[in-house]
Amino acid sequence: MSLINRQLRLKTRPQGLVKREDFELVQQPVPELKDGEFLLRVLYLSMDPTNRVWMSDIPQYMPPVAIGEVMRGLGLGRVVASKSAHYAEGDLVQGLTGWQDYAVIDERRRKDYAKLPAQTTMPLPTLLGACGFSGITAYYGLTEIAPVQPGETLVVSAAAGSVGSIAGQIGKLHGARVVGIAGGPDKCRYLVERLGFDAAVDYKAENWKQALAEATPDGVHVNFENVGGAVMRAVLGRMVNGGRVALCGLIANYASGERPSDDYSVIIVKRLNVRGFLAFDYADTHKAVHELVSWVQSGRIKAEETIEDGLENAPQVLNQLFDGSHRGKLLLRVSDENV
Amino acid sequence: MSLINRQLRLKTRPQGLVKREDFELVQQPVPELKDGEFLLRVLYLSMDPTNRVWMSDIPQYMPPVAIGEVMRGLGLGRVVASKSAHYAEGDLVQGLTGWQDYAVIDERRRKDYAKLPAQTTMPLPTLLGACGFSGITAYYGLTEIAPVQPGETLVVSAAAGSVGSIAGQIGKLHGARVVGIAGGPDKCRYLVERLGFDAAVDYKAENWKQALAEATPDGVHVNFENVGGAVMRAVLGRMVNGGRVALCGLIANYASGERPSDDYSVIIVKRLNVRGFLAFDYADTHKAVHELVSWVQSGRIKAEETIEDGLENAPQVLNQLFDGSHRGKLLLRVSDENV
Repeated sequence: MSLINRQLRLKTRPQGLVKREDFELVQQPVPELKDGEFLLRVLYLSMDPTNRVWMSDIPQYMPPVAIGEVMRGLGLGRVVASKSAHYAEGDLVQGLTGWQDYAVIDERRRKDYAKLPAQTTMPLPTLLGACGFSGITAYYGLTEIAPVQPGETLVVSAAAGSVGSIAGQIGKLHGARVVGIAGGPDKCRYLVERLGFDAAVDYKAENWKQALAEATPDGVHVNFENVGGAVMRAVLGRMVNGGRVALCGLIANYASGERPSDDYSVIIVKRLNVRGFLAFDYADTHKAVHELVSWVQSGRIKAEETIEDGLENAPQVLNQLFDGSHRGKLLLRVSDENV
Repeated sequence: MSLINRQLRLKTRPQGLVKREDFELVQQPVPELKDGEFLLRVLYLSMDPTNRVWMSDIPQYMPPVAIGEVMRGLGLGRVVASKSAHYAEGDLVQGLTGWQDYAVIDERRRKDYAKLPAQTTMPLPTLLGACGFSGITAYYGLTEIAPVQPGETLVVSAAAGSVGSIAGQIGKLHGARVVGIAGGPDKCRYLVERLGFDAAVDYKAENWKQALAEATPDGVHVNFENVGGAVMRAVLGRMVNGGRVALCGLIANYASGERPSDDYSVIIVKRLNVRGFLAFDYADTHKAVHELVSWVQSGRIKAEETIEDGLENAPQVLNQLFDGSHRGKLLLRVSDENV
């Protein structure tokens, strides 16, 4: 069997939003497996703001993707061939598969490629979303980075997104008053009516800062921040003295092409504790995943995915993260699940 | 005895550096004391970056000084008359005296007016500087906000200033490698040769970023930050993952008149913990003052003051904080100590 692998390789570094022409679609045969390697058929790719960061030659927590390299991306796949004792045909694996149909992976990198329960009743998109790195990120942000206490007010930005929607629901499980910020009345209704947020603020509405003030009468104790820019400035302006910020993402900065104009002064004025974090730093996510799975299965956390199709569409689909046209976890289906 | 009180009242909000004309020098008789009040002869005024912040109508931790109001300022004075059971003639008192010759203070505000040991052997300028709020700020920054451990690298900006010089020396007492950032070769020599810093970086030198890199071969574990702007950006760029920042001041922003262009991204990239703090928040500073006094008296911490003269000169003297022309604690002598 000679398999053909399609790969999206970075051709030029995007300015602002991503364009199809920033990538080259290369087709080539899958190479023979060497001892210790296994072959993964990519089923779903996770579309994350960090993909956009990896395309730019700026300081970041991993090296940027080199020109000519397969685009880096988190995905979920099924093992279709193996010369490794650690992975068997049929295994479900999550990790940095890259933007391609097939990934050849060396078992020595196995700490980065987690096996998922093969006979799960959980839909795979939910395993990659709410119970994958998005959910794990929300989990650590509100347990280890900025634990939220019963009765406190938590504000989550990009609250209808993959991480924010889970963070807000975890906040509710912890007994907090949870206010979400999202774009448009539909998303705001979704947050309150479907996910159980106490209030939602539509940052596209004219009077949104006033609405934020009204939704946070006791101030803001914890900010789970995904957006940055004007949204974050408004939230920090509502924080109580000594408030805590779990700084998860700054999507307003990633594709704007503009120089950030943040202001550290508020951190002093309000004696804030601002902590940046990355879910990738947690070596053992077993407990987090276990809790997330049980919350989803019991219905205490509601997971939603927006699924688009076709590897070749990855660049345009990624842009949905920045125009706010999706809800929940944004995924790209690369292959039928039954491979 | 009819005493005349000179007061510097804020006339206009300064743009950038402070001008003499931004203030009005008002002379008026000291009013009769009411029951519970006492009269303080101001001896020294503490010249602090926060004075400049208080002049501007921007968000801050106290209301800005109102137009027409006596300029707010920390000072040290001697009680020269009292109708309070809590303060006696001759007592030395530290607190918000304001920019004036005499302050009438109500004993109900006594938590903000600390009595100092009247028979101290410590020079009064040192009591107001290294053992006053400057030293207290350094103390809490490196014990409670961002404790530094033996063998770690601490970088202090504005290191030859009132807070920075004490912070660096406390870092040495804690066993850290201490690198100071200051302006000019004289200050840098002073940090290393007189205060015992391990290295000093002259941010006015052309190759200062390279020098900072060479002075921090293991990266930076703790940043005690007084400056902000380009200096802070360079230091954050050298931080290790998980580094801690005690955010004390952002003097680069206070008088520049420009919109800050900070960037929160580095906090995520390096998983930093950034904490803003104010020494004013600590209600009981007894332990801190006690330790500072004993360190200064034993010579383990060296204190230095730059003392200027004349209440009427306060605005121009304050500007020395921003042009870097002083060393150690900047004080204004308002009256002879023997009153």
